[in-house]
Parts: sequence; C-alpha cells; structure tokens
Amino acid sequence: MNALAQLGMVSELPSENQTIIAQLPSIDVEDRKDYFVERDGMKYAGTHLLVDLWGATNLADPALIDAALRNAALQAGATILHSHFHHFTPNGGVSGVVVLAESHISIHTWPERDFAAIDIFMCGACNPHDAIPVLRAAFHPHRVDLDEQRRGRVF
Amino acid sequence: MNALAQLGMVSELPSENQTIIAQLPSIDVEDRKDYFVERDGMKYAGTHLLVDLWGATNLADPALIDAALRNAALQAGATILHSHFHHFTPNGGVSGVVVLAESHISIHTWPERDFAAIDIFMCGACNPHDAIPVLRAAFHPHRVDLDEQRRGRVF
Repeated sequence: MNALAQLGMVSELPSENQTIIAQLPSIDVEDRKDYFVERDGMKYAGTHLLVDLWGATNLADPALIDAALRNAALQAGATILHSHFHHFTPNGGVSGVVVLAESHISIHTWPERDFAAIDIFMCGACNPHDAIPVLRAAFHPHRVDLDEQRRGRVF
Repeated sequence: MNALAQLGMVSELPSENQTIIAQLPSIDVEDRKDYFVERDGMKYAGTHLLVDLWGATNLADPALIDAALRNAALQAGATILHSHFHHFTPNGGVSGVVVLAESHISIHTWPERDFAAIDIFMCGACNPHDAIPVLRAAFHPHRVDLDEQRRGRVF
C-alpha cells in the first residue's frame, strides 16, 4: 500500500514514489569506476565518510544543496548519474542523494538545529576527502564530526 | 560539463542526470518523522547501520533489489519518497537508493565478488534493525558485517 497515500501526502511529481531503473551501456572492465582498491596494505571496496555538520547554514535551500553536493562529487573525481532532493515543511529540512558511478553522496538537514548528516561513499580512484572543502564552503559549519569507514574489507 | 557525455555514456532516460526537487505539502510539527530521539540517555538524530553482505545472491537484479529495499524500509516503519537504481554492465552491479521521510537506504553491489554494501539510515520512530531480516531473506548472505553509528549526537 502506498504509504504516502495513507498519510494523505500526495507527491507533486507523478513519478515520485516510483522506481526508476536506468541501464547504462556496456563499460569495458578496464573502465569500471567502482573496482576494489588496495591501500595501506588493505584491500576494500571503498571509503565511506560519515560527516556531521554542526552550526551550519544554507540547510533549507535545496537548489544550493544540490549544487554543493554535485560540486563536491566532481571535486572528488566522481561521475554523477542522478540526484533527487526533497524539501520538507514547515522546518524546511532537505533530504536527498546524488547517485554516483562510484557510489553516492547523501544529505539530511535539520535547519532548526543547524545540523546536517552527510555521507560520502566513494570507490575506485575517487578521494572522498576532496569533497570536504566544498561542503565547508557551502555550509560554513562551526564543527565537523568526521568518521571514516572502509567498506568491504577483504581479509 | 556532463561527465557522462565525456565518457560517451548516454543515459536512457532524459531526466537521468538532472536534479529532481520535490516539495511535499505542509506537515504539522507533531507529524514530523525525522525528529531527534532520546534513547539510553543519548539524544541524537538517527541510527545509521552500515551493512556489508558477503557471499550474497541476487546482486545483479535491480527489480528484486528495489523490491527488497522497499520492503525493508516498510518493515522498519519508514515512509518511501523515491527510489532510483542503476544497473551497470558488464559486471551487472547495481547502485541505488530509496529516499525516505526518515532518511534513506542505499545499496551498491559487486556481483562478481558476491558482495554488497548497504546503508540503512533512519530517524524518528523507525527501527533500522527491523530491515535486516528482509535483506537476509532477499540476498542470503553467508556473512553480515554490521556497524551501528548514531548520527548527530547532542552532547
């Protein structure tokens, strides 16, 4: 059953609650962008940064947030496939994601608390740390809590 | 510049690389689904499970993956807003996300390694742990590496 209908919430866009499955043309194995990497003696799928911003601004502006996340992805060397953001009222919070060939960047904001939770998950040749300065410049956080996880470690 | 065009990769759907910003109607503050919670003496925005599946099956089937993630979200009590999946060739890997009113569930699969990296980030009244049995049933992993992070802890 459509959960949105239960709540009496109707989406503006008819395709909102539907799945979009996109198929990309064949890519040579050598051109794959999400291959496992080996660094510091570890072999793993990718690096996942959990970034909590405190005392941040611009957290209720979906257009700015979209631009910031896209720029952050490009700065880290990623390939953008799709992005989708929701703008909630009345608190103005934004939730959304940029899907990358090398994984994703997501954001959830609480403007009433000047807080945002961002995830930067990147594989292959990308360096997710290169995304951080773009986010700092866009949101001007007083504090950034950063946690780094290596996903898919091969032992 | 459109990164996809640089690589000679053209999306099937014209809206693929564009941002979709959806605005939901006004929600009473009492009805907000992503409020901060207090548990075990801690106040925080939400629980984020990092779930790595090893020895998993069905990792190259975007329709099945979409259904599994949607069911997992509903089982955890979440409200689905949008989902989007990409199916890569030749390895058949799938990358995608389900955007929720309470945050998101994302997945990236490496069928050639029987490995998938899943994120279940949920706020408010949802329990992301309730999503795990649905994922086990869909992907039959031999091993599940689970890490729980509490995002946005208020000290």
